[in-house]
Amino acid sequence: MKVGGEHFRTIWLKPGNDRVVQLIDQRFLPHQFVIEDISTVTQMATAIQEMHVRGAGLIGASAGYGMYLAVLETADTAAATADFDRQLADAAAQLKDTRPTAVNLTWAIERIRAGLAVKQTLAVQEKVTLALCIAKQIAAEDEENCRMIGQHGLSLIEQIARRKNGQPVNVLTHCNAGWLAFVDYGSALAPIYAAHDRGLPVHVWVDETRPRSQGSKLTAWELGQHGVPHTIIADSAGGHLMQHGEVDLVIVGSDRTTCTGDVANKIGTYLKALAAQDNGVPFYVALPSSSFDWTIRDGSEIPIEERDAEELKNVEGWRDGQTVEVRVAPEESPAANYGFDVTPRRLVTGLITERGICKADEKSILELFPEHAS
Amino acid sequence: MKVGGEHFRTIWLKPGNDRVVQLIDQRFLPHQFVIEDISTVTQMATAIQEMHVRGAGLIGASAGYGMYLAVLETADTAAATADFDRQLADAAAQLKDTRPTAVNLTWAIERIRAGLAVKQTLAVQEKVTLALCIAKQIAAEDEENCRMIGQHGLSLIEQIARRKNGQPVNVLTHCNAGWLAFVDYGSALAPIYAAHDRGLPVHVWVDETRPRSQGSKLTAWELGQHGVPHTIIADSAGGHLMQHGEVDLVIVGSDRTTCTGDVANKIGTYLKALAAQDNGVPFYVALPSSSFDWTIRDGSEIPIEERDAEELKNVEGWRDGQTVEVRVAPEESPAANYGFDVTPRRLVTGLITERGICKADEKSILELFPEHAS
Repeated sequence: MKVGGEHFRTIWLKPGNDRVVQLIDQRFLPHQFVIEDISTVTQMATAIQEMHVRGAGLIGASAGYGMYLAVLETADTAAATADFDRQLADAAAQLKDTRPTAVNLTWAIERIRAGLAVKQTLAVQEKVTLALCIAKQIAAEDEENCRMIGQHGLSLIEQIARRKNGQPVNVLTHCNAGWLAFVDYGSALAPIYAAHDRGLPVHVWVDETRPRSQGSKLTAWELGQHGVPHTIIADSAGGHLMQHGEVDLVIVGSDRTTCTGDVANKIGTYLKALAAQDNGVPFYVALPSSSFDWTIRDGSEIPIEERDAEELKNVEGWRDGQTVEVRVAPEESPAANYGFDVTPRRLVTGLITERGICKADEKSILELFPEHAS
Repeated sequence: MKVGGEHFRTIWLKPGNDRVVQLIDQRFLPHQFVIEDISTVTQMATAIQEMHVRGAGLIGASAGYGMYLAVLETADTAAATADFDRQLADAAAQLKDTRPTAVNLTWAIERIRAGLAVKQTLAVQEKVTLALCIAKQIAAEDEENCRMIGQHGLSLIEQIARRKNGQPVNVLTHCNAGWLAFVDYGSALAPIYAAHDRGLPVHVWVDETRPRSQGSKLTAWELGQHGVPHTIIADSAGGHLMQHGEVDLVIVGSDRTTCTGDVANKIGTYLKALAAQDNGVPFYVALPSSSFDWTIRDGSEIPIEERDAEELKNVEGWRDGQTVEVRVAPEESPAANYGFDVTPRRLVTGLITERGICKADEKSILELFPEHAS
């Protein structure tokens, strides 16, 4: 999507230099727009681990390009085929260690290794070409899936826009499931961009999403850069807005969705789903099918990450041209920092996927993805 | 309650000097414990306006002492009775202007004026004595009401403690309805202090309460100082905790409650009430009867204060021994900052008042407060 009027993806190959990957270093958003050059697998591992890049789709694409850089490095230094395989295995392990719970990370790494394994007899330079080809393919598929989520979700916004007769359609979202979390378009924000680009009047209520503030720091920034009207609100405000008819539609992303339709997403999603149900507001979850967990039948089985309590007791912000941290709680008070919660399927109006919209139940999901019916 | 092992109220007359009122300057909590001397009505007006003191009960008590200081000053300078009345009216207007929506402010000011008006023939020194007497009475009544709320609410915690057989009773609260918001004890926290002081095992989940963070800055501090086990959580986390059986009871305060039982309180209270209902967790509201609005029959009629958006886009915290502000959102993104929401009576298990616990419906409320049945 657009940044300062120019089209960007979150990750790309440096123009004119195929040995360098470029990405937006998201740690500095919304205060500074920083592009980082990545030319080694170690640099990519650091970028993933220290969250220069984050979000399921983007982590997958970054891991793909990371494996390409690993093949490049290995091709430069490995003398024999045995060395090549061992060095590549080391690089894969290094990348996998960065974010142990990110499903897309392992998936992307193994996809490139499997591709290379099939063609054992390739010359080294051809291995490099093949790895780059698969890495580009992973990024392109992510982008295309998100674009399709946008097209399918657009129909929901169009329906409401017709009913509202030119009044803005108010969409509430939580956390960042925008293009910054993928290669482009995003999941929850893709239908919003599609509607905006088609000229439909759309306005987004952006939950700030404590404690890491991905809403106010990332979602507000990317919507603003693309020109989409939006308003930042406290995480506590959504219920009040729904009570007063100020929300037409909720769309959130998902970190993991069971094959039965229970949705794990950023902590606080469940509270918005309850308020949506209490006020008759449709509640949709947008996700590429890579976020389905086909092995889990009940949301309560999804492990919930508990993060460092200091994230809650200290706030990072911008002051005098630099990032600083301030304390907002008593030094000696304990805090607990749960990363996600699970919204039960009974509160979900529907799922927006790259193949279309379906109800949040096993039968409907498997009708869209019959290859997973076993 | 206790601060560093010593008992404090939030406001008191300076020992040995009846012409000075002392209060805890809450702007510096939890980072510094600052006691402020107030000896003029202008100083008290500033303390209320700039939120050195806040909270319904404490604002009322502060206004009472402010009027006492006004009578003192007027007695020093006014030559004739006409001057006295005019100067006192000016002081009352100055105090009322500080927080236009605080019901207790006007109520306390008018109570002192009415007291003095009845005794027009009093000598000036006797007016001073009478004003101080009423100011002390306002503070004492606030303290006693909160103490009684604690005693009535204690029974709820005792019941759960018996059932849990020595396991801690987990209470979730939102915002600060503790002793810092009143003269002592608090409303929502009074039953918790009563249980803790009686040796019952009680643990409090403290919602941080964005954007002003009264939970992490004030509630966590006062619980910690009194030795009550507690954990700070994001405002988004309560639903997840209730889903996992980690909350036995919710107790919140109220800024205004209709005579039919609808509850206006800090933004986000409604979301916790929804989660409590969805998980079968009892949801209680603790309030002195001064917080009932006997003129309003439906919560939707309660006006909701919209505060400065900058409160949401900038976070004030502690760094290098001083308070500093950092920006946490794009400069150009709009924000909306709603102060309160209304929890409909159907979600409220009961009201804890100084006269006892009742259901959140008009009949039950009027049984406790029959003098308001008209």
